[in-house]
Amino acid sequence: MTFSVAVSGATGYAGGEVLRLLAHHPQVQIGAVAAHSNAGQRLGDLQPHLHAFADRVLVDSTVESLAGHDVVFLALPHGRSGEIAAQLPEGTIVIDAAADHRLESAEAWEQFYGSAHAGTWPYGLPEMIVDPHGTRQRSRLEGQSRIAVPGCYPTGSQLALAPAVAAGAVETTDIVIVAASGTSGAGKALKPHLLGAEVMGNMSAYGVGGVHRHTPEIEQGLGWVAGGREVTVSFTPTLAPMPRGILTTATAKLTGTMAATAVRDFYVDTYAQEPFVHVLPEGQMPTTQAVLGSNHVQLQVVADERAGRLIVVAALDNLTKGTAGGAIQSMNIALGLPEQTGLTQQGVAP
Amino acid sequence: MTFSVAVSGATGYAGGEVLRLLAHHPQVQIGAVAAHSNAGQRLGDLQPHLHAFADRVLVDSTVESLAGHDVVFLALPHGRSGEIAAQLPEGTIVIDAAADHRLESAEAWEQFYGSAHAGTWPYGLPEMIVDPHGTRQRSRLEGQSRIAVPGCYPTGSQLALAPAVAAGAVETTDIVIVAASGTSGAGKALKPHLLGAEVMGNMSAYGVGGVHRHTPEIEQGLGWVAGGREVTVSFTPTLAPMPRGILTTATAKLTGTMAATAVRDFYVDTYAQEPFVHVLPEGQMPTTQAVLGSNHVQLQVVADERAGRLIVVAALDNLTKGTAGGAIQSMNIALGLPEQTGLTQQGVAP
Amino acid sequence: MTFSVAVSGATGYAGGEVLRLLAHHPQVQIGAVAAHSNAGQRLGDLQPHLHAFADRVLVDSTVESLAGHDVVFLALPHGRSGEIAAQLPEGTIVIDAAADHRLESAEAWEQFYGSAHAGTWPYGLPEMIVDPHGTRQRSRLEGQSRIAVPGCYPTGSQLALAPAVAAGAVETTDIVIVAASGTSGAGKALKPHLLGAEVMGNMSAYGVGGVHRHTPEIEQGLGWVAGGREVTVSFTPTLAPMPRGILTTATAKLTGTMAATAVRDFYVDTYAQEPFVHVLPEGQMPTTQAVLGSNHVQLQVVADERAGRLIVVAALDNLTKGTAGGAIQSMNIALGLPEQTGLTQQGVAP
Amino acid sequence: MTFSVAVSGATGYAGGEVLRLLAHHPQVQIGAVAAHSNAGQRLGDLQPHLHAFADRVLVDSTVESLAGHDVVFLALPHGRSGEIAAQLPEGTIVIDAAADHRLESAEAWEQFYGSAHAGTWPYGLPEMIVDPHGTRQRSRLEGQSRIAVPGCYPTGSQLALAPAVAAGAVETTDIVIVAASGTSGAGKALKPHLLGAEVMGNMSAYGVGGVHRHTPEIEQGLGWVAGGREVTVSFTPTLAPMPRGILTTATAKLTGTMAATAVRDFYVDTYAQEPFVHVLPEGQMPTTQAVLGSNHVQLQVVADERAGRLIVVAALDNLTKGTAGGAIQSMNIALGLPEQTGLTQQGVAP
Repeated sequence: MTFSVAVSGATGYAGGEVLRLLAHHPQVQIGAVAAHSNAGQRLGDLQPHLHAFADRVLVDSTVESLAGHDVVFLALPHGRSGEIAAQLPEGTIVIDAAADHRLESAEAWEQFYGSAHAGTWPYGLPEMIVDPHGTRQRSRLEGQSRIAVPGCYPTGSQLALAPAVAAGAVETTDIVIVAASGTSGAGKALKPHLLGAEVMGNMSAYGVGGVHRHTPEIEQGLGWVAGGREVTVSFTPTLAPMPRGILTTATAKLTGTMAATAVRDFYVDTYAQEPFVHVLPEGQMPTTQAVLGSNHVQLQVVADERAGRLIVVAALDNLTKGTAGGAIQSMNIALGLPEQTGLTQQGVAP
Repeated sequence: MTFSVAVSGATGYAGGEVLRLLAHHPQVQIGAVAAHSNAGQRLGDLQPHLHAFADRVLVDSTVESLAGHDVVFLALPHGRSGEIAAQLPEGTIVIDAAADHRLESAEAWEQFYGSAHAGTWPYGLPEMIVDPHGTRQRSRLEGQSRIAVPGCYPTGSQLALAPAVAAGAVETTDIVIVAASGTSGAGKALKPHLLGAEVMGNMSAYGVGGVHRHTPEIEQGLGWVAGGREVTVSFTPTLAPMPRGILTTATAKLTGTMAATAVRDFYVDTYAQEPFVHVLPEGQMPTTQAVLGSNHVQLQVVADERAGRLIVVAALDNLTKGTAGGAIQSMNIALGLPEQTGLTQQGVAP
Repeated sequence: MTFSVAVSGATGYAGGEVLRLLAHHPQVQIGAVAAHSNAGQRLGDLQPHLHAFADRVLVDSTVESLAGHDVVFLALPHGRSGEIAAQLPEGTIVIDAAADHRLESAEAWEQFYGSAHAGTWPYGLPEMIVDPHGTRQRSRLEGQSRIAVPGCYPTGSQLALAPAVAAGAVETTDIVIVAASGTSGAGKALKPHLLGAEVMGNMSAYGVGGVHRHTPEIEQGLGWVAGGREVTVSFTPTLAPMPRGILTTATAKLTGTMAATAVRDFYVDTYAQEPFVHVLPEGQMPTTQAVLGSNHVQLQVVADERAGRLIVVAALDNLTKGTAGGAIQSMNIALGLPEQTGLTQQGVAP
Repeated sequence: MTFSVAVSGATGYAGGEVLRLLAHHPQVQIGAVAAHSNAGQRLGDLQPHLHAFADRVLVDSTVESLAGHDVVFLALPHGRSGEIAAQLPEGTIVIDAAADHRLESAEAWEQFYGSAHAGTWPYGLPEMIVDPHGTRQRSRLEGQSRIAVPGCYPTGSQLALAPAVAAGAVETTDIVIVAASGTSGAGKALKPHLLGAEVMGNMSAYGVGGVHRHTPEIEQGLGWVAGGREVTVSFTPTLAPMPRGILTTATAKLTGTMAATAVRDFYVDTYAQEPFVHVLPEGQMPTTQAVLGSNHVQLQVVADERAGRLIVVAALDNLTKGTAGGAIQSMNIALGLPEQTGLTQQGVAP
């Protein structure tokens, strides 16, 4: 059986990655390829890496062009998905790569995004444990027709810390996360600090002081497994001189209620059956190169008993598992297809 | 039907890329994963991006471990393939990623490689036109059980210039090629100038003066279509600060016998039916990023009538189309499978 | 004695590099720091690497703000220098980093730049030999008050080929140059293909087919030493994933009138007394990293007797020797200061 | 007055950077240029960016070759400095870029370095406040003849946190530091994970779990200003795809005893008179590119009142301020020269 898929925002990095991955998805046929300002152009002029779709002409990103597909991917700037989704049939599976429907708290949305809250959709992070019993988020995605794709930073941060929080191994108000992202995470907007000459050979921090919009999203996810404890996260994103990839260093104060080895074992067990999230053997560290272009997340878990902190390092590709790959994984679940269809565990290295 | 495949040299960049691609080849099952000095280790310790094979234990790269498979990939240092291949059954398909069996001229081999010539195998560049009638090299690969994988630079250079030479549009003794390669082309050997700190932000030339070993290979291929004319190539490779990719700038003096537009049209026609080699629309330039991790070659053809030269620019991934992808493409042909099986036209960009 | 210097275009890459170098010039005091759209802003907000001038407020780039200085550097977009210079006193030394006054041929200017020719100024490439007697261009810069800074590509190309042309060692109508530049060469303009995510890990060609504006400039310089022979250059620039640096591979057909070793010796002799241009010992290749941030040019000269071509490889920093360093070197000569003042032969490596 | 200087370890990155900077130091003359395995070779073959010293022949790194100079820089592997220094005259100024003499605690030395402690020398970080009265470390360097150059990570971490610790603004047992370093920090050792193809486009963590050797050094420095409070640091270094630079994200739990603005003001005041360490204007973030090749440290100080943490971001060049520049700054102080001699506040950007 083949499902028809429309991709809105096809000229951006997220939309391009959805198309790259779907080109080899055996049960998907690409229908409308839509954009805003570039409607009428060949896709090949704007996304020259997508040879299979080079001669497709971009259509305008309207409800009319997107309707009539089994699945619609929305890879639009924040704030536009709600309106479009509201006009698509209920049965159409809508996967929203923007932030619009991620947050449960209207207050947090308004504080961090400065606009009206569009509502909350099931959160597309299948591997995440969402309660103390180890229930996975995937069970909440089956049969859904509206799914919010997690942010790229929250994908790594939540997978890195949810098990420790669920196990009660760390203090939920003493969490410090520093993450380094490739510059595709900032999108294709033409900003001076994103020019190649500025970015290469350069590291910088941004959104310093808890103001990055992914902060409440990380706290929300960890809150699901915190059993009522307050969750506060100090999150600092940094920009790294690479096109793709996120390396997350997530640390939290150990409560001391679990032995260090037990914490690590809990992580290994938690992700043992997951196809796309794994704890590496002891001593081996995650690298973003090893997961480039893949849907894989590498984790390492180390307890620093001297400093009394747990350190979890996570590597993922911000465009694949962190956006488009995760989106397709959720689509597979929603459609009842095998979760791994069209996705890979193998990174493009070196 | 499923074919069993052994990969020798699995810890290097070429062997790793073969495994990365075969992980999703629907008609292949990976048998022996072999190496030399690392036998006995987990593959995951050496190729952490290949999650699907992480727990495979490397076996010693001997005839015993390789025999009994339908296909054997040899990704060994130059000079070792001949001996191993000689001991494998004639029916086993042996694909040699080393240079050993590429050259027809024992004299050229000895001059450039400094050892005894191991013989010549069919040359695994299916799209290449090999005579004035437009015959493709693929016809010479069907049903073969010994195939020599072309060098990464010759793949780009030959695809870039063979049509012009075959058409008589350029002088075959006034060819100048300058190519820039990502540093994976130099392999995993531990040399000071290949350290990251030396390579990043740096461009350099090497093998200057016609001494690079790919020079006679390029001349040999162009000679096949030169109709008896002598072929001499000035080839200068350079090292670029990127992990993968080759950008080839191939130029030759125009003979003036064909109009500039006719030359370009001839290229477009030549590659029109090819799945993996294409001339981009006028004005669009090849980029290595657009073909990263793919089996695709992007070409652009421009006549500089002022300077009287043809300039053909080619972009490919040295590890994929330039090595492992090209090898698998040849395997598919040898096995009678659809040529594109397990390969992609889509690059990993950005 | 101290000279007052104004810098126009201080927010761009060229203007920033002028300021970086002049910060340690012992006989210069920085006066007006001028820009166009950013007038009124702190320089530190736009050029955060120039701590010494961080609190300087940008003034508008007008004749009024620039007049009254001993030296004025113009680092403006092409086409604006002529008008400003015409209004500055004759005695003011004006160093123009734009192309406006480089070409002698109004016809070539109009063909490649599409506007009216602003006239020709002395060409600021002191080391270049400009006649068969080995006269250097520096003698034509002494005491001048209007100097045109060479283009970044012509700096490398001309230093690489002028000796061979002057010596009659190569055919002047069979010259092929392929050069790779860091992306700062494209300036700070906000263009999609210059975004970091597009540039990193990527090589591409542009201006293919002899249409790059530096082509006639290269031909002009080589023409000075060609003794009446026609000069035609096939020039292909490429964009490399690094912020700075140009690696030039310049080749030309050997005439066969000089032994290969004699050609190389001629280069060694030509540049033996130069502080900033040197032929490396045999076997050592130029690298852009070795000249990063310096005013140095590394050359290597190899004759490929098999292919009958001379290959000269040159490495320089496009912003330093290729623009701002060369400009200051010319200023030193014009002012009668020691030519090396404020400049370095040492690159920032690794 | 001119001082003679010998550099041991001249073929490594630290030794090379010492020579690069001293080439323009007006009161220094380079004497012996010493190395171990490369004695007898031209320096130009190994450090091609140091044109001024290209023809210097490396001498063996012995007491005999180093003695007789006013100043000796030791840029040797850890563990060798003590023995050499012991044999040099007391009056010779010895600047040790290795770790040997940094730590006061023999126990910490033995735990982290696994060898016998060589003793403690004055710590070469002039700007650091070392007691609650704001005394600077520079006062302890004047007239000294043995100086230990700080580690590259401790330079950034200590400058980032010492003011907050001294002011009692943060809890000294809840400090989390994550730092990203360019790969030159790992030196020139030939290790597979340092190859360019592995490093480019890649971020990874190492020394995870408090085991990096710079951890006790950071704790020692912060201990000087902690007024008896225990200091524990969770430190995670990461490897970034760039040749140089360290971006440090240093966070600590706010005690709440000082208003957020007061903390920032205290930093601004602390470094207001420093030539090489500055807090950027509010809203501007440090970048490693802005300090490349310079002796400058950029800081930004932000209080995240929501999460109750102070975040201090610091950017420096690991080879310049983090090693060779800091070493020369200390030499200047020891010799009674102006502290800035031969050093720059300007970074090489872009």
